[in-house]
Amino acid sequence: MEIKDWGEEKWIAYLKEQFPPHDFNTGIGDDCAVIPFSKKQAWLVTTDALVEGVHFLKNKISPRDLGYKSIAVNVSDIAAMGGKPKFAFLSIALPKNTECHWAKELIAGIQESCRKWEIQILGGDTVGSHRDIFINLTLVGENEIDKIKYRTGAQLDDMICVTGYLGDAGAGLQIILEGKPAGKHLILAQYRPQPSWEQGKWLASHDGVHAMMDLSDGLNCDLRRLVKSSDCGARIELSQIPLSPELKQTCQDYQWDALKFALTGGEDYSLLLTVSQNAWTEIQMSFKKKFGSDLYAIGRITDQKEHVEYLLNKNPLIVNSEYFDHFK
Amino acid sequence: MEIKDWGEEKWIAYLKEQFPPHDFNTGIGDDCAVIPFSKKQAWLVTTDALVEGVHFLKNKISPRDLGYKSIAVNVSDIAAMGGKPKFAFLSIALPKNTECHWAKELIAGIQESCRKWEIQILGGDTVGSHRDIFINLTLVGENEIDKIKYRTGAQLDDMICVTGYLGDAGAGLQIILEGKPAGKHLILAQYRPQPSWEQGKWLASHDGVHAMMDLSDGLNCDLRRLVKSSDCGARIELSQIPLSPELKQTCQDYQWDALKFALTGGEDYSLLLTVSQNAWTEIQMSFKKKFGSDLYAIGRITDQKEHVEYLLNKNPLIVNSEYFDHFK
Repeated sequence: MEIKDWGEEKWIAYLKEQFPPHDFNTGIGDDCAVIPFSKKQAWLVTTDALVEGVHFLKNKISPRDLGYKSIAVNVSDIAAMGGKPKFAFLSIALPKNTECHWAKELIAGIQESCRKWEIQILGGDTVGSHRDIFINLTLVGENEIDKIKYRTGAQLDDMICVTGYLGDAGAGLQIILEGKPAGKHLILAQYRPQPSWEQGKWLASHDGVHAMMDLSDGLNCDLRRLVKSSDCGARIELSQIPLSPELKQTCQDYQWDALKFALTGGEDYSLLLTVSQNAWTEIQMSFKKKFGSDLYAIGRITDQKEHVEYLLNKNPLIVNSEYFDHFK
Repeated sequence: MEIKDWGEEKWIAYLKEQFPPHDFNTGIGDDCAVIPFSKKQAWLVTTDALVEGVHFLKNKISPRDLGYKSIAVNVSDIAAMGGKPKFAFLSIALPKNTECHWAKELIAGIQESCRKWEIQILGGDTVGSHRDIFINLTLVGENEIDKIKYRTGAQLDDMICVTGYLGDAGAGLQIILEGKPAGKHLILAQYRPQPSWEQGKWLASHDGVHAMMDLSDGLNCDLRRLVKSSDCGARIELSQIPLSPELKQTCQDYQWDALKFALTGGEDYSLLLTVSQNAWTEIQMSFKKKFGSDLYAIGRITDQKEHVEYLLNKNPLIVNSEYFDHFK
């Protein structure tokens, strides 16, 4: 039997079983590991690996964008638990025939990200690679222990919210792969994700925010993880999902399904959170005032365990699994 | 121009320049990054990447040994700064056609190491790979800030010492690659390195120990790094380098040069340290009493900056660069 027969979910489940969580840590399963280092403070640690041919195609992304993105995707994980990014450890494996210019541009993109999010690279490993390029980043952030938000905190009747447009990065990838002459905004969403640890930290500081995670694999996939962790269900009103004007226009032009990108496209790197009904109005208004952008309510937490229900203009939508598998 | 034209040293030098060290950290260049988290304590963080076809051949090492070794090489870095290993973040990229049995054995080897050194895996990333297997480990250890030893601490006339036999792992690799029917002990040294954080911690707790690092790339290469960091030179008496009976016998059988393995073979994962002359006798005797093994004095620190001088039975040895390049 091969790993592809097991599938990623089973392989991760096996690893979780082999490396069980410890009492001082949430362990494998949340966006970051949580490691208290004083009575009040904890490190948040996240790791992401990017592999050529799997996570990126060398002829489709510039080395500068790749460097930028390799940091950004980790910042998103720190943001999801309300942390401020601090320092990182970077491993880069390059084949011998990698152009020096390409390598320098990769580093320039990493430096750009590090300046943007005030991250210091404190170490790492630089090695040769046989064939594929491999980039691994371990990013360490910091937050007060009692301010950290987990995937496990969602409560019945909580509002389900997102912090930005969904589907842009997924549509951007489609445009890149098909070589379409359009969608600059969407391509940027794919190459230059904009996680905001400031938004994450602000949201995490509110008791009314119960659960939070980042959107990396698409709303459908990530929301199922959240309700599984919180032992509850979710009802989503599809008409409430924020879609950018560019996504709508592009999908109209090419007869693509914008909602499919929003649900399954992935790589949005905005935040998915649940907010208590009582706190919702206040948090939504303050968020808008503070950040000048909307917090979008797209559904509610239900008591139907591990069940995600979709409505379209209040009518239940029968979504078959093919719909979600389409992009896999 | 390609990375192979630059060479590893230039590429690392470029990265050091781009990511300069910070005042609270030794930065890139020592075995670990040092991150204080209280007035007295600091985390030690090290990262090592293992790439198929570069650091290991899938048909030459069992997945269990590979898993074991991926942790061991990082423990060696923590030991070099006197730390106790604590927790780790593990990224594994596997091609889709990897056998599940192979993956499970890899994990079993990692678990074996984690039990041996009391390390907890707190997170990581599991991803697909296009062609090559990648394993990246970020290991975090702990030590008292004023007990940490650096590569920069060597002083004039210090004794240069190592904690174990040199060259066994290098000869083991040669045996494996040539398929020789011999050298079980040497093969084990290659597959199952035995770093000792207990020895590292004990040595680091002595003021008489001035500088310390681990031996991963061979004595010649690593010693040059140490004297460069400490702005001094070294004189090595080759007849004092500890060689195992198995290495001597095997080299006699195959007419191999044992000293070449000791100087350039790499992967010894014992410690290289410098000890003040005054403290030497006491430290050597206490070490023997505590660990039942020898601390070997192999030379002295000199004031000839960045110069490593070799003697054989007190006569200067003219070593040309070919000698060292032979195994590269």
